[in-house]
Amino acid sequence: MFTGLSAFPLTPLLNDDIDEAAFIRLLTRLTHADVNSLGVLGSTGSYAYLTREQRKRVTVIAKAHAGKIPVMTSIGAISTAEILRLAEDAQSAGADALLLPAMSYQPLNDDEVYSLYEDVSANVSVPVCVYDNPRCTHFSFSENLLSRIAALPQIRAIKMPGAPTEAGTITDRVRRLRSRVPQHVALGVSADAFAVDGLNAGCDIWFSVCGGLFPRTAKAIADAAARHDQQQVAALSERFTPLWALFTQHGGGIRVIAAAAALLGLVSPECLPRPLKALGRDDVAEIAAVLRATGLE
Amino acid sequence: MFTGLSAFPLTPLLNDDIDEAAFIRLLTRLTHADVNSLGVLGSTGSYAYLTREQRKRVTVIAKAHAGKIPVMTSIGAISTAEILRLAEDAQSAGADALLLPAMSYQPLNDDEVYSLYEDVSANVSVPVCVYDNPRCTHFSFSENLLSRIAALPQIRAIKMPGAPTEAGTITDRVRRLRSRVPQHVALGVSADAFAVDGLNAGCDIWFSVCGGLFPRTAKAIADAAARHDQQQVAALSERFTPLWALFTQHGGGIRVIAAAAALLGLVSPECLPRPLKALGRDDVAEIAAVLRATGLE
Repeated sequence: MFTGLSAFPLTPLLNDDIDEAAFIRLLTRLTHADVNSLGVLGSTGSYAYLTREQRKRVTVIAKAHAGKIPVMTSIGAISTAEILRLAEDAQSAGADALLLPAMSYQPLNDDEVYSLYEDVSANVSVPVCVYDNPRCTHFSFSENLLSRIAALPQIRAIKMPGAPTEAGTITDRVRRLRSRVPQHVALGVSADAFAVDGLNAGCDIWFSVCGGLFPRTAKAIADAAARHDQQQVAALSERFTPLWALFTQHGGGIRVIAAAAALLGLVSPECLPRPLKALGRDDVAEIAAVLRATGLE
Repeated sequence: MFTGLSAFPLTPLLNDDIDEAAFIRLLTRLTHADVNSLGVLGSTGSYAYLTREQRKRVTVIAKAHAGKIPVMTSIGAISTAEILRLAEDAQSAGADALLLPAMSYQPLNDDEVYSLYEDVSANVSVPVCVYDNPRCTHFSFSENLLSRIAALPQIRAIKMPGAPTEAGTITDRVRRLRSRVPQHVALGVSADAFAVDGLNAGCDIWFSVCGGLFPRTAKAIADAAARHDQQQVAALSERFTPLWALFTQHGGGIRVIAAAAALLGLVSPECLPRPLKALGRDDVAEIAAVLRATGLE
């Protein structure tokens, strides 16, 4: 399941609970666009803000509306005990894969993070994707640690941040990591603005927030990348460029994607979990202008 | 309740659940030393790793064993909805005050954090202490934001990080902030290694992790500071100095305090919530040597 476009939708809320009708609207767009997989409860899917019961419900709904498209769900939490409970819930809800970040409160060391993946991989029966998202989790995986974790049972993919780090660009990192993890472990790029670089560098999969709302355009990019049609990739990516600039401006994609989804009439304007707030009127007007100019819909 | 020494004990675990007997042993040391208040479920009390039910149980146990000493408990969580549920639980368990950090997953902006404190202060009936802990929460309060939050109902204290930041030393910050928050809002210092600076600068209260395990020495420091007996403060603080150096070396106090508590026979050596790990044999031996040399017990 770790190839092509993995679309990461919002989990829209209404008064602090799941807005099931809106979530199903988002899922339906994704299945109609025939994305390769669904990544529910990613960072933009607000996994970190929801209760255990809400998270199980999200996975159940996603499976009920995904048809034959495989569903990955995040089991991230601060404690290992809770992660293991979430893994049980996700598997019993039918999740086809589990996305596991290294959320931290007390700063973690490599030994602790390795043990976490060891504990989880020994207790689950579906594929696990390692989720490296230092912006939100405040833990950065070294290539050495990723290589050790990738050798554990059930580990089948690594979701890498796209933006350049001290370790170099996504291109550098993919090239180095490919030789250090087993062939059965897929490498994937996230952070949409760097997707093209990641796909060109040989990533197997694109974990995409834009793909969670605009799956047709994102799927066309992923398909063009698979054909090595770089001209088409570049042309299509240009439609997303102004959106990616707004992601940077507003501290990540979640507030921008929520505003765009509300503009498209898919979710309530106040669909984010408190304390996150919807963008203000001027910012929303700017996003509306971008949608008009790019024809994204 | 926001004066003198507020002792922050560990919440010792055994097989991922609260080790109630060990927790009561820790609480008994604190009440015997007559600390001014208890701060349960602080960062070193592992609030971020426990379930809602476990957190309520910790507050109930603390109240049952605190005698007349007031108990503050943390209601920190990533979502406002969960924070409000935890506030209800804490108040119904008899908490005398609530400690509220700005935990983050998606990076928060000032408006969002202000709204969080506004939502909580409108929904609780006991004093709230603002908890500024950028090391673990990855949100830093500006003095401007603290000053706005301090004007909200129920806000009665600010727990400040002790270590120097871009905004200057704790001394600089206390002096500036004192003129910007109402007199009924106490200022407190945490990060034990900077406690003396904070107390000398005019902090009303010391929120102390060392005080959670070695309450007699910490109480003597707080009492000497209240008498402005700087010579005695300096002499007593010297006993903690090697411990504070180990805090820095091991990424914060929690792993060191857990090892020290185990050496004293108060908790199990594996008392931390996974994925946090107990320190290794060599590190524990070093801590044992420090306890012997300083006579801390």
